Amino acid sequence: MTNVGQSLADWIKMRFGPNAVSQSSETAFQVPQLLETILNHRTHRRYADKPVPPEMLKVLLACTFSTPSKSDLQQCSVIHVRDRKQQERLGGLIPSMPWITAAPEFLVFCGDSRRIRRISELRGIPFANDHLDAFLNAAADAAMHLSTFIAAADAAGLGTCPISVLRNHIAEVTEILALPEHVFPLAGCCLGWPAAEGFSSLRLPLELTVHEDRYDAEKTDRLIDQYDHDRDARFRIPDSGHKYVDEYGKVDFYGWSEDKARQVSKPERDGLGAFLREQGFNFD
Amino acid sequence: MTNVGQSLADWIKMRFGPNAVSQSSETAFQVPQLLETILNHRTHRRYADKPVPPEMLKVLLACTFSTPSKSDLQQCSVIHVRDRKQQERLGGLIPSMPWITAAPEFLVFCGDSRRIRRISELRGIPFANDHLDAFLNAAADAAMHLSTFIAAADAAGLGTCPISVLRNHIAEVTEILALPEHVFPLAGCCLGWPAAEGFSSLRLPLELTVHEDRYDAEKTDRLIDQYDHDRDARFRIPDSGHKYVDEYGKVDFYGWSEDKARQVSKPERDGLGAFLREQGFNFD
Repeated sequence: MTNVGQSLADWIKMRFGPNAVSQSSETAFQVPQLLETILNHRTHRRYADKPVPPEMLKVLLACTFSTPSKSDLQQCSVIHVRDRKQQERLGGLIPSMPWITAAPEFLVFCGDSRRIRRISELRGIPFANDHLDAFLNAAADAAMHLSTFIAAADAAGLGTCPISVLRNHIAEVTEILALPEHVFPLAGCCLGWPAAEGFSSLRLPLELTVHEDRYDAEKTDRLIDQYDHDRDARFRIPDSGHKYVDEYGKVDFYGWSEDKARQVSKPERDGLGAFLREQGFNFD
Repeated sequence: MTNVGQSLADWIKMRFGPNAVSQSSETAFQVPQLLETILNHRTHRRYADKPVPPEMLKVLLACTFSTPSKSDLQQCSVIHVRDRKQQERLGGLIPSMPWITAAPEFLVFCGDSRRIRRISELRGIPFANDHLDAFLNAAADAAMHLSTFIAAADAAGLGTCPISVLRNHIAEVTEILALPEHVFPLAGCCLGWPAAEGFSSLRLPLELTVHEDRYDAEKTDRLIDQYDHDRDARFRIPDSGHKYVDEYGKVDFYGWSEDKARQVSKPERDGLGAFLREQGFNFD
């Protein structure tokens, strides 16, 4: 438990539950507003009928590409989907998420291992890193850029919703966006002015996700039940949201861990590796 | 080109070069301070002899774990290296980067696919997603958390340096941190109070990294030379920094693309896939 001032303590409790901090009458340090913005991150899937100024989007993209990149190789590319027909084609792949088509702006964050390979060709120097790590670095760059885009949008008062389910339709997305070899979509992202306040999702306690010096493999077993109950007290998963009841039955208490265990009991994106091999990646 | 106000234009030019924006006497919108913080991101490898208050680190970690995670599966774990001996063991693997040992705080960001697999066991439900996508999601979660940690540290006036080269010694790092199956280190991160102003690295122009509607594969060829020269004007790579001159010779102009092509001409981390397969991951 950490002693922090009243206002910051409230933000942290909202995110991690009532036991995450104890309040102190003395604020240990001044909290920059940006930290509150980050702590207060919410996903937004409904947007006001009001455009995002192009200048603002440009600034958000400038922020996005200020993110550090692995070895300064800068292996992220963003596809800004401006043509409504393109956006409808992407949205049409996932009818359960109408916000993809409805969002005022839609962008796709790609891992781009092509650029450095092309630069090697242009400079007449052999590229000697065609292996898993090349893929991982491009993926990590794309993920870090997406995260910064979301933080920048939050700071500007905009709302976002990342759409990694694009990867469930990776062949179609790759074709629609004309992605060449060694480029792949990590996730899309909706952007617009929030139409509602949104919802702050309760996260696993830091005691579980942060380890001291060595990974403590026993923590999950010890702490997961309390998290399930804390989360249930904030937001109960309604009966209608219980997954695969015919197969796994009804349980007395249906918490986050039960829900996630059921979710990952069905294969999803198990064809990703085969597709990305066709797209030129090597996972050796 | 985007019309933005004077101050913001200066920030964007610092990051993307003089042609990135045109200035307008009218500011299109108020720029929140956080956006300037993100635009002004710098890597810091030298730190003042002043500790990071534990309360502040706790707040930064709370920010970090407020990052959205793929399908709410929360697949990032952080190892906070507190024991000086642990930090020295990690730093000892990479003597060329003394800041790993010298940093007041050192953390390792891990992709954690173990937790959800353990939850499936605890709930008695089969885990059916042992494939490339499981690895990618854990990696992306870790990368997004690292990115948010860096932004939060910047906002708090602290400096960071991500250390992905930990992966060059992944077997040793995994042993030192006692990472179990299905957990792997994406990168470390140094944290401390900056001892110097730092340096704003010039990034590829947004015209090259942001595509409209479809990926434009010709952009690299068209725009890379100008970037090399813009970057050279800001910071010339000294002769002593030219790589593998014996092998590739001297060139009239040694820019970013020449440097990066030479860098990736030597295999690095080509054993990562084999090690991560031992660590339980499946890349099919």
